[in-house]
Amino acid sequence: MASLLVIKIGGNIIDDPTALQRFLTAFSGLKGARILIHGGGKIATQIAEKLGIETKMVDGRRITDQPMLDVVTMVYGGLVNKQIVAKLQALEVNAIGLTGADGSTVLARKRPVKDIDYGMVGDIEEVDSGQIQFFLRQELTPVFAPITYNTVGELLNTNADTMASAIAVDMVTHNEVTLIYCFEKKGVLKDPSDDNSVIDKLTPALYEAYKTAGIISKGMIPKLDNAFNALKKGVSRVIICHADEVATAVDQGAGTTLML
Amino acid sequence: MASLLVIKIGGNIIDDPTALQRFLTAFSGLKGARILIHGGGKIATQIAEKLGIETKMVDGRRITDQPMLDVVTMVYGGLVNKQIVAKLQALEVNAIGLTGADGSTVLARKRPVKDIDYGMVGDIEEVDSGQIQFFLRQELTPVFAPITYNTVGELLNTNADTMASAIAVDMVTHNEVTLIYCFEKKGVLKDPSDDNSVIDKLTPALYEAYKTAGIISKGMIPKLDNAFNALKKGVSRVIICHADEVATAVDQGAGTTLML
Repeated sequence: MASLLVIKIGGNIIDDPTALQRFLTAFSGLKGARILIHGGGKIATQIAEKLGIETKMVDGRRITDQPMLDVVTMVYGGLVNKQIVAKLQALEVNAIGLTGADGSTVLARKRPVKDIDYGMVGDIEEVDSGQIQFFLRQELTPVFAPITYNTVGELLNTNADTMASAIAVDMVTHNEVTLIYCFEKKGVLKDPSDDNSVIDKLTPALYEAYKTAGIISKGMIPKLDNAFNALKKGVSRVIICHADEVATAVDQGAGTTLML
Repeated sequence: MASLLVIKIGGNIIDDPTALQRFLTAFSGLKGARILIHGGGKIATQIAEKLGIETKMVDGRRITDQPMLDVVTMVYGGLVNKQIVAKLQALEVNAIGLTGADGSTVLARKRPVKDIDYGMVGDIEEVDSGQIQFFLRQELTPVFAPITYNTVGELLNTNADTMASAIAVDMVTHNEVTLIYCFEKKGVLKDPSDDNSVIDKLTPALYEAYKTAGIISKGMIPKLDNAFNALKKGVSRVIICHADEVATAVDQGAGTTLML
């Protein structure tokens, strides 16, 4: 099977134009089929503030009401997505910017209200890997914004890590898939204050041990849960690395490699 | 050759959620291959105002500086485009939202500075009709926001009427193309204050006569110039009609029909 890279680029890179350009240049040099999923960054929060839209948090988690969804749709689906697409075109990558609604690629349902009403947030139901495969066959490079839709025509805010994982998992029927999470750290760190304390390899057993010891911190846990879930569902390789090391990661490994 | 409808929907319809929903429902019922191009509406100006971005006009024409381009990219390329795509998906149209940068479908160049520097405004250089045809063959319905890009990776604000005309013209190699401009009037009016004074048929000679007599007004002229230009370049039919009459226009004619 042909190899496919599914690469997620985090918000901190999006917020730094120089780091983003460096990443996109590296991305454009990668061989073979690629899919990019980008996070949002702080621009949405800044624009919401300027528009007088309050950021609502419950138990430390952001609530997406309709005004905030509109901001997210504008900023992630419009500004960030189209700027990345145009920059990739200049780097001779024939990129196509997508939300889950475009080509019905990623269908979700609105998260049911239990203790907390998260608002217009989507839990992914179905990835149309056939549609995505069809873009890849035409040598188009899909660039996904973290927005999905449901069957009644609503757009839904969706976690970019989860979207990357769901897309990677669904593409295993067509490809040998490597999933790479790129961010501003060199990998999963043993000591958050020491950028060089990268954990090279992580197995489920080691992951549990690090969690029990409190070494792997809160923010990293959903990302790693997504990553191990992808491996269990047939993704060949998951790497968590610095955005600047994406090319090295693909060729010879860098950052943290997850294995079962 | 298979028939293709290239339909442009104006800003006033975009600004009215009920009118937009009515139009999209009618659009979803049209048979065969379709391409939608949407204008922007007033939302961009409103959001720019709230963000403290000044709308600059020179000789009555809007100047697109970088902050305004960002707003246009957010609002047209993000909010408006993705909302239309999601609504069409709910109407069982497999829509795909695009700017000219996506799939390198519509390449432009920044308008050269002569008397006025329009800023980040694009004059269309090339439409990739092969790429668009490829979407249509997959039964995807392209929905274009009026934004293009250039070879150095910049996004450019582009007139939606011009974009519709350029796309229609370029698609004539693959299809028998009907170009329809939908807006909030019943057609080209003899008397702007009388909604029922629709000019049924318009030839280049009649057009010149109406212009000379001052009957066809300023705002209509660029639209009609685009429309006649499209006819000269091989588009089979151009219709200017009310958004509510799009289905009638396709089946039996409505509004103003242009002919050579």
